Amino acid sequence: MEQNEVTVRVPMNIALVKYWGKRDEQLILPLNDSISLTVDKLTAETTVRMIEGVGKNTVEINGKNVELSSNKRYQTVFDEALRLQRKRKEISDSNGNSTSISHYFQVISTTNFPVAAGLASSAAGFAAIALGIQRLLNLDDSQANRLARIGSGSACRSMFGGLVHWKKGEKEDGSDCVAVKTCDSNWPDLYCIILVFNDGRKKVGSSEGMRRTSETSTLLQHRIESIVPQRIDEIKKAYSSRNFENLAKVIMADSNQFHAVCLDTSPPIRYLNDASWHLIELVEKFNEEEGIRAAYTFDAGPNACVILQKKDAKQFIDLVLKTIDIPEDDLKLAGEELSETFRPSEAAPMVKCSKLVISPMGGGPQE
Amino acid sequence: MEQNEVTVRVPMNIALVKYWGKRDEQLILPLNDSISLTVDKLTAETTVRMIEGVGKNTVEINGKNVELSSNKRYQTVFDEALRLQRKRKEISDSNGNSTSISHYFQVISTTNFPVAAGLASSAAGFAAIALGIQRLLNLDDSQANRLARIGSGSACRSMFGGLVHWKKGEKEDGSDCVAVKTCDSNWPDLYCIILVFNDGRKKVGSSEGMRRTSETSTLLQHRIESIVPQRIDEIKKAYSSRNFENLAKVIMADSNQFHAVCLDTSPPIRYLNDASWHLIELVEKFNEEEGIRAAYTFDAGPNACVILQKKDAKQFIDLVLKTIDIPEDDLKLAGEELSETFRPSEAAPMVKCSKLVISPMGGGPQE
Repeated sequence: MEQNEVTVRVPMNIALVKYWGKRDEQLILPLNDSISLTVDKLTAETTVRMIEGVGKNTVEINGKNVELSSNKRYQTVFDEALRLQRKRKEISDSNGNSTSISHYFQVISTTNFPVAAGLASSAAGFAAIALGIQRLLNLDDSQANRLARIGSGSACRSMFGGLVHWKKGEKEDGSDCVAVKTCDSNWPDLYCIILVFNDGRKKVGSSEGMRRTSETSTLLQHRIESIVPQRIDEIKKAYSSRNFENLAKVIMADSNQFHAVCLDTSPPIRYLNDASWHLIELVEKFNEEEGIRAAYTFDAGPNACVILQKKDAKQFIDLVLKTIDIPEDDLKLAGEELSETFRPSEAAPMVKCSKLVISPMGGGPQE
Repeated sequence: MEQNEVTVRVPMNIALVKYWGKRDEQLILPLNDSISLTVDKLTAETTVRMIEGVGKNTVEINGKNVELSSNKRYQTVFDEALRLQRKRKEISDSNGNSTSISHYFQVISTTNFPVAAGLASSAAGFAAIALGIQRLLNLDDSQANRLARIGSGSACRSMFGGLVHWKKGEKEDGSDCVAVKTCDSNWPDLYCIILVFNDGRKKVGSSEGMRRTSETSTLLQHRIESIVPQRIDEIKKAYSSRNFENLAKVIMADSNQFHAVCLDTSPPIRYLNDASWHLIELVEKFNEEEGIRAAYTFDAGPNACVILQKKDAKQFIDLVLKTIDIPEDDLKLAGEELSETFRPSEAAPMVKCSKLVISPMGGGPQE
C-alpha cells in the first residue's frame, strides 16, 4: 500500500534575477529565466495526506482553513496530481482495466514567519505540497516541478538547495519549463538579512502587476531578450567562483531593473517605499566604506533582503541599528546566529522595521 | 551704434518626452530628441546689457549676485557670444583690420516663482540671456539656440511658443542640434497645473544623474533608439489633431519611463516622493471617471505638472482639494484664472503642497 502521509519542511526563496511576466497564465510559464537562493530559516512545514474515498480537499495554513473556492490554485494542483496518478495507474495496469478509485487531499501547513509580512510564503507552501505529493505518488522531479509551478510560479525554485535556475523553456505545454540546481557546490558563507517594512498599503498583486507590465511596458521585452540571459550567466559565474562583488552588482542592478519595469507600466506600479529607499542608501553607504560587501534585493513589496557574507553581517546590523528600529527579540536571535551581542539604538530611529531575520542561504527542503 | 540693452520675458518649459543623457557634456548635446510646451505664467524677466570696455561680467538673479566662478555656464555663454560677435565683425570689416574692442555683460533676472522650488528656472533664465544677446548682436535663431543650450540644455526649448521639438542632431559640433517650433497652430485650451511638493531632500542633480544613467543603465539605450523617436511623432500627431487622450497617454508613459531609467541606474536615482505618487493616483482616479482628461509629468524632482484642457481644470482642482493642502493665495489666483471659486478643504489634508500654479501653455518669449 502507498504511504498516505508525508511531512516536509521547505524554505522560501529569493530571486537574484527576477521573474516578471508570464507567457502562459494558466500553466504559469514565465517570460524570462530567473535564478534564486533559498532562505534556510524561513520555512513552511507541511503535511500532505492523500486519502482514498470520496471527500473534500482541505488546506489549513497556520491553523486557519483556506477557502479553496477563492484560491483556485490549490484545486489546480490537486487535479494535476490525480491526473498524474491515473496516468501512472493506467500504465501499470497491464490488463487494461483501469479501476478508478477516488482520492482527496488534506494539507496542513505551518510557516515559521507571519504570512501577512509579504515574504513570498506561498512559494514555500506550494513547493512543500508538490514535494509531499511527489513522495506520495513517486513522481519524478520534472512532474513535481510542474505541480509546484502551477500552484505558484516561483515555488518551483524552492524544490532544491543551492543556486536554482528556473528556465522559462520554449514549449507550449511547459514540459521544458523547469527549475534546476545549477552549481554543484554550495556557498555556505552566504547569508541574508531580511527586513520587513510592510506598511499596510494596498499593493498591486504580482499576477496583476505582471499582466499589466507585459501589456504596457515598452522596456520589458528588451529586458527579457537582451539583459536577463546575460545576468543569469553572470550570477552563475560569480556564484561558482565565489566572487561576491560581481554577484552583488548583478543582484542590485536586477532588483532595480525589476522595479524600473514596474514603473514603466501603465498605470505605474510602485513597490518600494521610503523605508526601502532608506535601506538602499544604507547598503550604498556600507559598500562605499570597504568595497562591495552587501547587496539589496526587493520583490513585489517594500521588504528588503540584504545578501552578504557571514563575516560582514555583524558590521551591517550595527549600521542598520543606527537608524532603524528593530524588535528586540529579533536582535537576540540575530545575536545567537552570529555569536554576537546587539543592542537597540538609543538614538531615535528614523525607520521602523517590524521584523528582522538573519539566515544562511542555499539549504534545501527537508523531510 | 548697437543697442546695448534688451529686456525679455521668457517662460519655462516642460518636456512631454523627456531629455535624459548627453552625447557631449561640453556642448550639451543630448542623447535623444525631446519635445516640450512652455508654461506661460512661470517666467524669467531678464535684462541683458553689453558694455564696451574692460569690466567684469555680472549676473544678478532675484536681487542676488551669482558667483560666476562656481557657475561656469554663464561665462561659457558670454565667451561664445563674444566669439560670435568677433566673427561677424571680421566678416563686415572689408579692409581686414579687425579692431578688437573689449566688451562685458551685465544680466539682471527676476523670476516670478521661487528658484528653490525646483521648477527648472535655469532653463528660462538662460533662454532669456540667449534671446537678449540675440537681439543685441543680431544673431540668427540657430546661433541663439546654441547660446541657450550651452547655458542649460533644455533652455533652447524656451525660445519659442507652441510645441517645441529639440532635435539631438548627429554632428559633433552641434550645428544640427536645434530646437524648432513644430506645429503651426497653437492649442490655446491646453493648461497645466503645477504642484510643488519639494521636500528639501538632497536630490541628485540632473547633470550628475544623466551621467550616471548613461554609464550604468542597460535600458536607456533601448529607450533612446526604439522608444523616443516614435513618441515624438505621436506627440506631434496628437497635438496637431487636438487628440487629448493620445497626447496624455504618451506624456504619462514617458514621464514614467524617464523615472524608470533613473531607477535602472547604479546607484539608483529616485525623484518621486510619496506626494508625487499620491498625485499620480489622483490623476489615475480622475481619468477613470470620465475618460482620460489629465496627464501628469515629473521632471528631475518630486513636483507634479498636470496637463489638461481648461474646461477640466475646475473639476481636477476640486479633486485635489479633497486630499491636498494648497496655499490660500494660490487658490485665489487659480480661481481668478478660471473665473471660479475655490475653498481649501475642511477635512484634514493628507499631502502638503507648498505652491500651486495654473497656467496656459505654449506662449512664447516676449520683449
